[in-house]
Amino acid sequence: MSERRFGHIPGYPIGSHFVSRQALSRAGVHRPRIAGIAGSGQAGADSVVLAGGYEDGEDYEHTIFYTGHGGRDPQTHEQIGNQVLIRGNLALAQNRLHGLPVRVIRGAGFRSPYAPDSGYRYDGLFTVDDYWRGVGRAGFFIWRFRLVKMDADTQRQERVVQEALHVQELKQLYHYRCQICGVQLRGTAGSYAEAVHIRPLEAPHNGPDTSENMLCLCPNCHILLSIGGVGIADDFTLIGRPGSLYVDFRHRINIEHVRYRRQHYPPDPEM
Amino acid sequence: MSERRFGHIPGYPIGSHFVSRQALSRAGVHRPRIAGIAGSGQAGADSVVLAGGYEDGEDYEHTIFYTGHGGRDPQTHEQIGNQVLIRGNLALAQNRLHGLPVRVIRGAGFRSPYAPDSGYRYDGLFTVDDYWRGVGRAGFFIWRFRLVKMDADTQRQERVVQEALHVQELKQLYHYRCQICGVQLRGTAGSYAEAVHIRPLEAPHNGPDTSENMLCLCPNCHILLSIGGVGIADDFTLIGRPGSLYVDFRHRINIEHVRYRRQHYPPDPEM
Repeated sequence: MSERRFGHIPGYPIGSHFVSRQALSRAGVHRPRIAGIAGSGQAGADSVVLAGGYEDGEDYEHTIFYTGHGGRDPQTHEQIGNQVLIRGNLALAQNRLHGLPVRVIRGAGFRSPYAPDSGYRYDGLFTVDDYWRGVGRAGFFIWRFRLVKMDADTQRQERVVQEALHVQELKQLYHYRCQICGVQLRGTAGSYAEAVHIRPLEAPHNGPDTSENMLCLCPNCHILLSIGGVGIADDFTLIGRPGSLYVDFRHRINIEHVRYRRQHYPPDPEM
Repeated sequence: MSERRFGHIPGYPIGSHFVSRQALSRAGVHRPRIAGIAGSGQAGADSVVLAGGYEDGEDYEHTIFYTGHGGRDPQTHEQIGNQVLIRGNLALAQNRLHGLPVRVIRGAGFRSPYAPDSGYRYDGLFTVDDYWRGVGRAGFFIWRFRLVKMDADTQRQERVVQEALHVQELKQLYHYRCQICGVQLRGTAGSYAEAVHIRPLEAPHNGPDTSENMLCLCPNCHILLSIGGVGIADDFTLIGRPGSLYVDFRHRINIEHVRYRRQHYPPDPEM
């Protein structure tokens, strides 16, 4: 099975102990037997192991600065070149772009007060809040990722994962282009867009969490839709600016939600 | 004294009790003696009182749906018209736009299990997370505000307030225009921009919290600067797109921070 499995793995709650990488792999908690990052540059990373393999990992229990991979001599394991934003590093960058949490496993080899005494321990889901390029002790570039432990309850964590995977589909349908202004925000690791609920999820609006109630927007049009800077008419023409909402023929939008948004977040102060 | 005072009022910790609106006013915790919202459409609201004056206020302790004012008959206090996004309502909308917390005071007259038995109680700082237009029981439009209690410690809450006021100055200098792309995001209550630290505040970057290390950006250029979608050269020309950073002559930017950002969030994958 090569398909990525994001989120908690049923049967292995936080704190589960594993005697070896083989055991971790069999459980599906971290599939690769050598690589520290399980992931692809397309789908993102579903798990990482901190086992001391790389030179610079700093552990503050709820926040971890995780160092990417690459640039090492396969024989001596010394850093002999720069890390590049490819493979596992690119995968973790996807987690940042798409709000996908990653499983964190600490191994006994990791120099940290929070590492287990032996074997490996599953320590829960972390969000990838940011990533940047630093310089490691050997003087070469390394990629670093700020992992922050999710503090919601397990059920809610699972919802965040499912939601992030679900909205990915909608964003991919639009190639991360904003349905209002058409902009596509591209960075070095990929594109960024936001899935916005037309009728908000939160009380007292209680909009449904379905693609009928979602738009793929850039952050600017997201805020504009919330502060009356732009509105959407029943025929999808835009209010407050020229043009129309772009809607893919495979994306059904429920017009009731469009009306709800327009009435509750009116684009015209006289409304 | 008519100047607004945001944040906690020294000498009056959360839970402080007041026998009357006069006492609240003298303490400076809520200055106006009748109005429920202390604020202006320019500066935002520094405090609100929930005392049962309006028809629809819902209290979930840490979240409050606060109803704005206006549209009532001054004699009968009945709702006889629509509420409009002006005066106190417009003030609370500024809090949302600018991330300014508001003091919340509950009065005995407020129909809520969390109201005090008598007089008034200061219940701490709440953020204004969202606002929208609803329909009240009398069938007229009302404006509602989602107030969410801040759960950080008091010192950190005070920092959030000071920070929000401080960055306001920078945003106003630029009239909320993005220094990278020039866009100005306007809604019905005013404009929205983000103050971005060039060298990030968070560890391990530890950039200073000064205007020398800040830019006024739209959310799109904020994310682009974080994912390598745009960079800034030492002479302020943009990397990855045409043009230059717009810098007001009164805004000194420390070039070391610009270098730090470019090296750690490189706009070119080959960098």
